[in-house]
Amino acid sequence: MVLTGGGDCPGLNAVIRGIVKRASQTKDWEVIGCIESFNGVLREPTEIVELDEKAVEGLQTMGGTILGTTNKGGPFAWPVKQNDGSWTTADRSDEMLRKLQYMGVDAVINIGGDGSQRISLGLAEKGLNIVGVPKTIDNDLSMTDYTFGFQTAVQICTEAIDKLVTTAASHNRVFIMEVMGRDAGWIALHSAIAGGADVCVIPEIPYDVEAIKEKIEQRYNKRRGFCIIVVAEGAKPKGGDVVGTVTGEVGYQHIKLGGVGDRLADELRNAGVEHDIRCTILGHLQRGGTPTAFDRILASEFGVRAMELVMEGRFGQMVAYQHPDIVAVPLADAVKAQNLVQPDCRLVDTARGLGISFGDRRD
Amino acid sequence: MVLTGGGDCPGLNAVIRGIVKRASQTKDWEVIGCIESFNGVLREPTEIVELDEKAVEGLQTMGGTILGTTNKGGPFAWPVKQNDGSWTTADRSDEMLRKLQYMGVDAVINIGGDGSQRISLGLAEKGLNIVGVPKTIDNDLSMTDYTFGFQTAVQICTEAIDKLVTTAASHNRVFIMEVMGRDAGWIALHSAIAGGADVCVIPEIPYDVEAIKEKIEQRYNKRRGFCIIVVAEGAKPKGGDVVGTVTGEVGYQHIKLGGVGDRLADELRNAGVEHDIRCTILGHLQRGGTPTAFDRILASEFGVRAMELVMEGRFGQMVAYQHPDIVAVPLADAVKAQNLVQPDCRLVDTARGLGISFGDRRD
Amino acid sequence: MVLTGGGDCPGLNAVIRGIVKRASQTKDWEVIGCIESFNGVLREPTEIVELDEKAVEGLQTMGGTILGTTNKGGPFAWPVKQNDGSWTTADRSDEMLRKLQYMGVDAVINIGGDGSQRISLGLAEKGLNIVGVPKTIDNDLSMTDYTFGFQTAVQICTEAIDKLVTTAASHNRVFIMEVMGRDAGWIALHSAIAGGADVCVIPEIPYDVEAIKEKIEQRYNKRRGFCIIVVAEGAKPKGGDVVGTVTGEVGYQHIKLGGVGDRLADELRNAGVEHDIRCTILGHLQRGGTPTAFDRILASEFGVRAMELVMEGRFGQMVAYQHPDIVAVPLADAVKAQNLVQPDCRLVDTARGLGISFGDRRD
Amino acid sequence: MVLTGGGDCPGLNAVIRGIVKRASQTKDWEVIGCIESFNGVLREPTEIVELDEKAVEGLQTMGGTILGTTNKGGPFAWPVKQNDGSWTTADRSDEMLRKLQYMGVDAVINIGGDGSQRISLGLAEKGLNIVGVPKTIDNDLSMTDYTFGFQTAVQICTEAIDKLVTTAASHNRVFIMEVMGRDAGWIALHSAIAGGADVCVIPEIPYDVEAIKEKIEQRYNKRRGFCIIVVAEGAKPKGGDVVGTVTGEVGYQHIKLGGVGDRLADELRNAGVEHDIRCTILGHLQRGGTPTAFDRILASEFGVRAMELVMEGRFGQMVAYQHPDIVAVPLADAVKAQNLVQPDCRLVDTARGLGISFGDRRD
Repeated sequence: MVLTGGGDCPGLNAVIRGIVKRASQTKDWEVIGCIESFNGVLREPTEIVELDEKAVEGLQTMGGTILGTTNKGGPFAWPVKQNDGSWTTADRSDEMLRKLQYMGVDAVINIGGDGSQRISLGLAEKGLNIVGVPKTIDNDLSMTDYTFGFQTAVQICTEAIDKLVTTAASHNRVFIMEVMGRDAGWIALHSAIAGGADVCVIPEIPYDVEAIKEKIEQRYNKRRGFCIIVVAEGAKPKGGDVVGTVTGEVGYQHIKLGGVGDRLADELRNAGVEHDIRCTILGHLQRGGTPTAFDRILASEFGVRAMELVMEGRFGQMVAYQHPDIVAVPLADAVKAQNLVQPDCRLVDTARGLGISFGDRRD
Repeated sequence: MVLTGGGDCPGLNAVIRGIVKRASQTKDWEVIGCIESFNGVLREPTEIVELDEKAVEGLQTMGGTILGTTNKGGPFAWPVKQNDGSWTTADRSDEMLRKLQYMGVDAVINIGGDGSQRISLGLAEKGLNIVGVPKTIDNDLSMTDYTFGFQTAVQICTEAIDKLVTTAASHNRVFIMEVMGRDAGWIALHSAIAGGADVCVIPEIPYDVEAIKEKIEQRYNKRRGFCIIVVAEGAKPKGGDVVGTVTGEVGYQHIKLGGVGDRLADELRNAGVEHDIRCTILGHLQRGGTPTAFDRILASEFGVRAMELVMEGRFGQMVAYQHPDIVAVPLADAVKAQNLVQPDCRLVDTARGLGISFGDRRD
Repeated sequence: MVLTGGGDCPGLNAVIRGIVKRASQTKDWEVIGCIESFNGVLREPTEIVELDEKAVEGLQTMGGTILGTTNKGGPFAWPVKQNDGSWTTADRSDEMLRKLQYMGVDAVINIGGDGSQRISLGLAEKGLNIVGVPKTIDNDLSMTDYTFGFQTAVQICTEAIDKLVTTAASHNRVFIMEVMGRDAGWIALHSAIAGGADVCVIPEIPYDVEAIKEKIEQRYNKRRGFCIIVVAEGAKPKGGDVVGTVTGEVGYQHIKLGGVGDRLADELRNAGVEHDIRCTILGHLQRGGTPTAFDRILASEFGVRAMELVMEGRFGQMVAYQHPDIVAVPLADAVKAQNLVQPDCRLVDTARGLGISFGDRRD
Repeated sequence: MVLTGGGDCPGLNAVIRGIVKRASQTKDWEVIGCIESFNGVLREPTEIVELDEKAVEGLQTMGGTILGTTNKGGPFAWPVKQNDGSWTTADRSDEMLRKLQYMGVDAVINIGGDGSQRISLGLAEKGLNIVGVPKTIDNDLSMTDYTFGFQTAVQICTEAIDKLVTTAASHNRVFIMEVMGRDAGWIALHSAIAGGADVCVIPEIPYDVEAIKEKIEQRYNKRRGFCIIVVAEGAKPKGGDVVGTVTGEVGYQHIKLGGVGDRLADELRNAGVEHDIRCTILGHLQRGGTPTAFDRILASEFGVRAMELVMEGRFGQMVAYQHPDIVAVPLADAVKAQNLVQPDCRLVDTARGLGISFGDRRD
């Protein structure tokens, strides 16, 4: 049984296709899909679909996931309404395992991010035959060099900068482009280099608005010039905090980031920048559309390899890309550490070498 | 002398190239460019560039304008700071005409929108040899069937919908996409049809939030389904008004639209829509990047024809596309009426035929 | 019943979707699709599919046709193998009409080119309730201003030129790009303007290799420079003929064009052009992939309007775009004349104004 | 001094920009560019351009090379016409070194492929301060994990397959797409996986036409179905040889590959495949256009690092990407071995796992 959890990501469908294609070469395995992560099993009636070769034809070209996905619910924290109208959560994991056994499910491949793989680990510890496939568009998992979806997001952000540059230059404007990156600035860093931005603001390097102002002025010759600033949604000023709003019902509350670009624009205006400043938020455009060739290939590799782990009976593992190999890492290790941008890493050095400022007075 | 005024628009550079290419076939004409609309002449020192064939090589592929552009200033309303620190405007048109005469400028081609062509008309009435080229990404000029930039914007919006659909379907979400269109809903209407949207909200047809809610529910089968809503920035609810903020210095104040998508999301939530609703604002991405083939051709035609009007001595005219011809219309006629979406026009009928709701209970 | 005939074309699926969407708003009509033009009815067992709203969801984004298509067979010329092994054709039109009646088919919408609409006309004359939708990627039908697929082909050719220019300039090469256009040079003309080509060779203006050579030399300054030549597959030298090979079985023989680019390269080399000359044939890439927004809209309009003609009982007609309206023209008129490039038309003049040579010594 | 040699490749301009941007951060280095590899120095008058920050603005978005490039000539094999009209070559390396010294050139960065780096090595051995930057669109250099341009080529090929699929499916055709890859099948392998091809034919795995025929038949269900075959230009049948024509003047003769797709089509027809088979040659389209974000970043890294090697005085080295580092490898090592597809490598296994046949009866 295959399922996808967490935010959608270009390449999910290519993983599903890889699993099904590999399974179809054996006589021993049939693949079914569970709708909206584990919820398709937990609900009554269950929502399960058959996945054969015909169902996955051409699927590597499609963004999103044909299985649907969700951040809500799950076997360990199913939302339950109490008599007084408030919400609590119930652990339905044992019930679900019985259900899977009853359905004759021999193994589960769980495609999802950090949260999803914690569920995988919990279920593995309870004896479920489960294999994980990592998914994070932010590329912030420490056990895999790359995850699918990331290059597609970078490509979309880069093309967006290419578009903004012509307007910025025509109007002598400062453009701030807000991209994804809650804790990790990888998307911002990659697209700032590829798009030829002037400033890159990431969560890992708190910014000083005066340093950004200086970089802007440097880019203008009297009144003519322009400046492109890429800012990750989780960026913070020195001594400050992220911008966002608390969202979600009780038990699912988290900070929905957003607005860092507008805040930076205001801070720059307050700091005395007189050029016209505009802000564009890429938002959901970054995770949509057809995956790049790179991501289709990586996702296909993950899918094929995950199915092979199932066939080999190697459960409790997550597939990962550790150049140049596709490997299996224990689920327990997989969810331990985040992969953040180190402020002195090679790519930051390259960016500084290209004249990109990180708003930290070291450029 | 060539100049570009108002907001930038894909195809401006192709017009400039067309003018220069056509002029270079004669021995009689040399082309110069004035930086930032007429401001390049009005400033001291003047900002003027030579435009020969080498300067315009490959220019049809580039968005924006190599001459820069601006919404501010102009010969009839030059901003002047008064002794008390407040701003007023001065009419510098006569001074500018003398300057042009002194510089030996025989004719001017002014590429710009409504406001720019009013300036063209004012200068023509004072005797300047001037030809206008229409520019409006919103396609809201009544004298020309199409303007360049419009199809590019529609294409970008359509590709954005294609991206959002995969996420919307994966998460069972309602997506609202806010596009350009202050008074005219052409971009929204075209991209809603091309993108296969479910709802299209335009300034010309005030919306009823209950009607939109009904359309949304119709698109969901129990908990699964999704809905795409395209909304023009100038859209209004029945009896309501546009959303925006007053911006600009005294004398240049106008309402900067924005936020209509978020308002609609709130209204839908308040009306009881329980599905997850997200809003994406395309913003400046719509006017950037390389023009589509269609817009490159139309812009090239405008450029070549404008230069020919100059060569023929037919001044006080604006080029226009009146299918199947490129014609010249008097500047006085050109700025009279707007081209708005008629609620019973062919394209609205087609959209209704495809099942698209305009939020007006007629679908 | 809907069917698609002739070569595939971006937008066919959008027409099918428009028909089904419009029909689904009534209670009176159900739509079925016939596989591979009329062959799905003529074969045993028949190949017919149901087309409801679910079947056409998102179809406007897909190139090709979900119904399949073919150039072979058809009710008036069904291939039959004779006893001696040779092939002849049989008229199965009466048999097919009986079959359609037996199946309860009330009306047929035939989406296809010149050949397909001749079949439509023949069947209409025999009493079938039939409506035509024009399809020609070459845009060479005289009764409609535009056909879907054409702008997509032009866009693809233009992007191909953009790609070739960087290589041409880096290597100081002459690049010849061969595009579609058997009788009409519209794709070549449009993409030459949009791509900024130097030479455009079309069937309607026989070329003189010496004139092209002169244009090439003009583009080089000593050894540095480059030249882009767009040539339609049906182009002919003065007094010469098209390049191609006879193909197909007896009764279906036609000249498959191809090779005009390589011939022109050889002619130029023989004429003494010493620069490196390369030829690229776009071929099938021109008719694939997702339609542009323009073509999706036009195709949707054709689909909706064709269904409405059926609902109005207006048979024997073909929908057409006669700016600014979508009209119905009698099938008998529709197949009469081709829409060729007139050598002195507006767009050719624009091209000459941009410095594009047609290889005819008039530039 | 910077120069680019060999076939053009997306990312060359991004390398040049990286070098200039990095150099501009010092006060010690000025960068000049030599036109058409070393020929700009060898010719009289010399062709040299200044490269400052303004000259490289936005260059990372442009394909090709602003410095021009060539496969012909070079310091060790300059073509010389003999009295009898035939050609020989002369070693002008010492003369060139003296010229560079006279010009005050302190160091040279040579961006180019295998042949170019052999020249780098020869010049380094004669004492020139030279640093190499690898360039091969085929990704066939053994010392670097990736070269820029490769991912762009794969992306273009993948998008081409996406286009062909819709036509193939509509017409039930077999499509053969011929891609680059003289000795190494990397582009074919990557794009076959990403595009979802059915067959992938590469130089490293000689093909058996019967095995391909079987795969084709398997893809058809009676008369309906389609098949996509990706073939590298250097592919060979078992016991056969590559297809191409001998080209070039004496001393520069080599086999220009091309035609392998058409040969395979003929072989399949002769083997009894009755489906309609079409062949598309991507050719120069693969190396044009704007680089993908991935290639822009890699090229920028190479440029910055190459300039740093110069600043550190580390000559006789070539920059290379050895994941996760950008390293310097001795030029002598750099040109030793090719990086070919190993028939049992991970990516081939993935491809087989997806059901892709290599025409070798092992799938």
